[in-house]
Amino acid sequence: MTANSNHNAPVCTPESRQAGDLQNERSQITFSTDDASCVFAGSREARDRNRWLLSLLRDHPDKVFDKDSRPFLGRTERFLRGQKVAQAYYELRNKHGLQKEDRDRLRLLLDEYIPLQVHESMGQPTIESQSSPEQLQEWGPKVSSGRWLVCYAQTELAHGSNLSGLRTTATLDTGSDTWIIDTPEPSAGKCWIGGSGMTTTHAIVMAQMSINNKSFGMHPFLVPMRDPETHKLLPGVFAMDMGPKVGAPAMDNGYITFDHVSIPRQNLMGKFQHVDKGGKYQTRNQAAKALTRGAMTLVRVGLIEIAAHHAARATLVAMRYSLVRRQGSSKGGAEPQILDYSSVQQRLFTCLSTSWALNFVGSSKGGAEPQILDYSSVQQRLFTCLSISWALNFVVHGFTSILKACATFQGLDVVETARRSMGGHGYSAASGLTDLERNQPTAGLTYEGDNHMLLCGPAANFLVKTLDSDKRPVRRELHFLFHEPRFDVTKPHEWLDEERQLNLLGSRAAKLVRDLSALRREAKDAATLAYLESALSARASRAAGSYLILYAFDARLSLLRSASAESIVGIKPAAELLRALEDLRSFYVLEACVLRDVGDFVESGLLRAEQVSWARQTAAHLALRLRKQAIGLAEAADMDDWYLGSPLGHSDGRAYERMIDWMRLEPLNQQGLSGGRDEDGVLKGFRQAMGRLTHGEAQHLNGEAAARDSRL
Amino acid sequence: MTANSNHNAPVCTPESRQAGDLQNERSQITFSTDDASCVFAGSREARDRNRWLLSLLRDHPDKVFDKDSRPFLGRTERFLRGQKVAQAYYELRNKHGLQKEDRDRLRLLLDEYIPLQVHESMGQPTIESQSSPEQLQEWGPKVSSGRWLVCYAQTELAHGSNLSGLRTTATLDTGSDTWIIDTPEPSAGKCWIGGSGMTTTHAIVMAQMSINNKSFGMHPFLVPMRDPETHKLLPGVFAMDMGPKVGAPAMDNGYITFDHVSIPRQNLMGKFQHVDKGGKYQTRNQAAKALTRGAMTLVRVGLIEIAAHHAARATLVAMRYSLVRRQGSSKGGAEPQILDYSSVQQRLFTCLSTSWALNFVGSSKGGAEPQILDYSSVQQRLFTCLSISWALNFVVHGFTSILKACATFQGLDVVETARRSMGGHGYSAASGLTDLERNQPTAGLTYEGDNHMLLCGPAANFLVKTLDSDKRPVRRELHFLFHEPRFDVTKPHEWLDEERQLNLLGSRAAKLVRDLSALRREAKDAATLAYLESALSARASRAAGSYLILYAFDARLSLLRSASAESIVGIKPAAELLRALEDLRSFYVLEACVLRDVGDFVESGLLRAEQVSWARQTAAHLALRLRKQAIGLAEAADMDDWYLGSPLGHSDGRAYERMIDWMRLEPLNQQGLSGGRDEDGVLKGFRQAMGRLTHGEAQHLNGEAAARDSRL
Repeated sequence: MTANSNHNAPVCTPESRQAGDLQNERSQITFSTDDASCVFAGSREARDRNRWLLSLLRDHPDKVFDKDSRPFLGRTERFLRGQKVAQAYYELRNKHGLQKEDRDRLRLLLDEYIPLQVHESMGQPTIESQSSPEQLQEWGPKVSSGRWLVCYAQTELAHGSNLSGLRTTATLDTGSDTWIIDTPEPSAGKCWIGGSGMTTTHAIVMAQMSINNKSFGMHPFLVPMRDPETHKLLPGVFAMDMGPKVGAPAMDNGYITFDHVSIPRQNLMGKFQHVDKGGKYQTRNQAAKALTRGAMTLVRVGLIEIAAHHAARATLVAMRYSLVRRQGSSKGGAEPQILDYSSVQQRLFTCLSTSWALNFVGSSKGGAEPQILDYSSVQQRLFTCLSISWALNFVVHGFTSILKACATFQGLDVVETARRSMGGHGYSAASGLTDLERNQPTAGLTYEGDNHMLLCGPAANFLVKTLDSDKRPVRRELHFLFHEPRFDVTKPHEWLDEERQLNLLGSRAAKLVRDLSALRREAKDAATLAYLESALSARASRAAGSYLILYAFDARLSLLRSASAESIVGIKPAAELLRALEDLRSFYVLEACVLRDVGDFVESGLLRAEQVSWARQTAAHLALRLRKQAIGLAEAADMDDWYLGSPLGHSDGRAYERMIDWMRLEPLNQQGLSGGRDEDGVLKGFRQAMGRLTHGEAQHLNGEAAARDSRL
Repeated sequence: MTANSNHNAPVCTPESRQAGDLQNERSQITFSTDDASCVFAGSREARDRNRWLLSLLRDHPDKVFDKDSRPFLGRTERFLRGQKVAQAYYELRNKHGLQKEDRDRLRLLLDEYIPLQVHESMGQPTIESQSSPEQLQEWGPKVSSGRWLVCYAQTELAHGSNLSGLRTTATLDTGSDTWIIDTPEPSAGKCWIGGSGMTTTHAIVMAQMSINNKSFGMHPFLVPMRDPETHKLLPGVFAMDMGPKVGAPAMDNGYITFDHVSIPRQNLMGKFQHVDKGGKYQTRNQAAKALTRGAMTLVRVGLIEIAAHHAARATLVAMRYSLVRRQGSSKGGAEPQILDYSSVQQRLFTCLSTSWALNFVGSSKGGAEPQILDYSSVQQRLFTCLSISWALNFVVHGFTSILKACATFQGLDVVETARRSMGGHGYSAASGLTDLERNQPTAGLTYEGDNHMLLCGPAANFLVKTLDSDKRPVRRELHFLFHEPRFDVTKPHEWLDEERQLNLLGSRAAKLVRDLSALRREAKDAATLAYLESALSARASRAAGSYLILYAFDARLSLLRSASAESIVGIKPAAELLRALEDLRSFYVLEACVLRDVGDFVESGLLRAEQVSWARQTAAHLALRLRKQAIGLAEAADMDDWYLGSPLGHSDGRAYERMIDWMRLEPLNQQGLSGGRDEDGVLKGFRQAMGRLTHGEAQHLNGEAAARDSRL
């Protein structure tokens, strides 16, 4: 381990080279990474706001949000840490009077699924949007101050997304003027209810409402769960944590049952219905009632943004490591950087371009017309249940079904591809990605609507319905359904034409939606038809998702090129930055859309083999150009080292030194009570377990095997 | 929670229905599941042997191998459990005199990556195959008895698969007649070395050998690491556990450095080289030296079988759960079983057929001619370094590069697809799949050769070299490279023709390998060419993998149909079983090979759009037929409940009751020292963290947000 080992070493070791490798890369970028980070965040203002929000966490005086030791915690310790994180988060939220958008961002940046997640994303919004004025006056301040912590209890153990199949009952007892909330059998227990296992004081319970033996279907009730003073479960309420899962260790997803629990009649959420003392049921505000699905739509919208964020994070880590990791034939000089391998470029540039594309669709700030993809505005309207038209609600539900599924699929794919591109070390938590991957990116495929179900069901139904209505929809994003399929690339370089690319994706999607519409009208062999229909539905919805994502990318590019860019984004993008984004966009189209699903395009006759071959060549050319700008485009995600928590993806490039330091923190390497070693540094209990082997106390190999061994 | 709730409940609850649902399914199968399990295992003898090996674990008097509490353990506890598992495993191995094949199986069935894994798979085999006779006599018995626990230390922190880039040195000191083993800088520390962090006594260290300032390249040395008596690290040796990672919590992948550690000159592994006291270097047995890569090839071979095993396990769990889980519109009766949804069928039957296909390629027992795919024979020969010809070695290396990558990719895909098909509960460790997924199926993509690297490098090189040698290879499995591409389906039902299917996969692979060979001869634009070449290499290698897997499937089917089936497999497969396997095979071809990569086939002109459409119809018909047999084909994997450890995939179908019981084991739900709750059942520390919010001690929301809230 001394410098003058008698090995004939090259002067240059990874230790002496890595920091320079990253600096070199940065010096080659032809645009300002600062500008790029404003574009990525949506605007300079948004970028700076994100930085300020992050600073609230990073600079917290009690270091509650620090993550250094987190990878080494067991589930219980991690959960207890999460309680402190949740409490400190709520204090920050209150202290700074943060609005919903800032709160969502802050929870994303604190990088832990906390028990308050559902209180914030579903509990409080439901209280605010589904209470009667009297309820809101009484409950609102308690909920917003955190005196009440509210979970949203819909899903049951044996009954998931099928609302009408839920079995929890709420029966009016006119004598006591109460609802009796009851779980008829254990499999009807509420399940996966975020925050309920250990934390929440109240639950919004979806239950089959019954009055005088007449069923009125599912309704929401506010049910107290725990004593406000002692925090003990109230009589008749049972709740427990659901146990270990893929990720989310600090979240107490809970299983809840109610054994004839009485709650006041007034605890039926009262915005859309009222039941009087005698049991008379009245509806209210029915025109707005369909918007009760708004809460879920709202969460779906957020999932797109979150998917984009994690994709960018994983890409940034993997990109940096691919530049300081060198391996392969050195031919006299240093070994090549991993990013100089084409197969790594293909994967990581696909990650990079996808993370930008998802980022634009997830936070689209619109162009000239008010964009449906401008979620912050839709979000606001859904959130406040204001003036969202029926037609717009139909479109928002359709779009979010498509985009939630496509974005979470693509987002997880990016995270996994990026992590795996890191070779063996990608398997280590030193990547900073292993924990990340198992939380939202993996869970996001399933919650708020399983992706497969969404793509085959609501997404496909929306597309077919829009097509079959046979009138041009108001939303420009849907006009593609009515265009004639066309793609007329006659020379390789025409593959870079943006309009042609968008038309190609639109044509594919339109073709598949038309095929689907035709198939649904057929009926000759119902059983096999169902199989064909479900497969085609998924393909059509995904194709539409690709188109919509590119549409959002183009809307953003056109804003960036426009005269109003500076006033909206806060910077005037230089030509070199625009060119890099254009390259990224084309690479996304070619690798992540066209070549990945090339069968769709060729089978439908949209592309000929020769055109596909040009697409491959064009992607290869773009990869060469992106190689030089890659670090800048990845670092535009503007995530600091404290946040990333990744020794291998650190901004100083000293990946190996940092990884070694990090390993030392592993409890198995520690002595003392919670460490794995005794005072001699020997594994505790070794002598009584494997030590029996090394001390020759184990039975010796006998039988045939011993005979064979003795022949050796 | 009482039976006579006044809710108008259907008589049938999941609790009363689930067991019957599974029994119903079993009663519909038209073949014997017992027969099918013999076919799956290779033979009745192998099936029974597997059962016996499992019984050694399940019936262990100390219950060391029981897994009930395992999902709830933190990493340190899990690691310490693993030490006991490893010790008990070794005792069983010795007591029963198990041969290599049985040992490998037993380690697979104990369901934990143990620190002895590498001792068994690499350490002992390397000692046995690379020692001189004198070394073997001295070291062999110590290694096989477990007195010495040996890891294999090749990879370095900053230097992975590039052998010539390794920097650890072994310098001969003629004065002391020793080798000085040295790690020149921290990034050259040995890394990921299985068992080395806490456990092993010795390491086989690959180091740059230097004698009198002359470098002789990489050579293996046996280096003592820990004191045999105290188990303390020896002077100059540093080793630690590498910390948390995606999976493998009971394995101490280690980071090791050597600071001028002296070992006897005789510790250079002596089968292929010798250095005398004066420093004179002599080679030995050079003809066999290339086989030193045998150790890695050997592990790759095993990975194929392991991938198949885990794929079958995940499929079995998901299949059962998809039959007892009901959800959706009930139309008066019970809700439909999840497996009655086409989109679930498409995913799960692809899993099922893939797991059988991988199983056949992983354990191919051959037909008339000695099969290269008969790994047990190749394994034996590699293991003993006997009489394996150069030509055969070339082929084995090529085949295992292709198949290791394809099988581990497909295997992980099956595990993930199966787990995700379970909806939200698939995210719970109650699936029994979350831990599984993160161990070998995920690690297998990377170790013993990163899959991308294998497919782009050795696999593709092997294929092109075989093609370009321009003489028909001896191995029949490679003849496809020289056939004219052909596919002549003119009617839908011809898609079921086995020969046509095999030809189609062969034709695609041949076409891509030829394109690749042609591309490699081009040189007009080197930079973009590299990109195109790497992408095409991966496609060609994967295509060849598909062909080889189907080839093995067909070899097994032809054995099962032959007169010798009974004598080899131990049962005579009934016509109904054969038909089910034929359906499974065709489904695999259509969904997992053709439709998944349909672009390859259409782009190359092998398939027209109409033929693709027939393929989709044929898959839909097959799905209908497989629906009835699915449970039998899944349960043929013959894995008992003790082994599966899956409340949701239990053979009695009582998924929800079992899941609830299982949740109760979560430490957060327990009281006492290691539990998460106090004596009142309240979360420990709640009052000091989130309790501050519920008690109104938190700062109240201020600023704009408070103003907004007051308007509500």
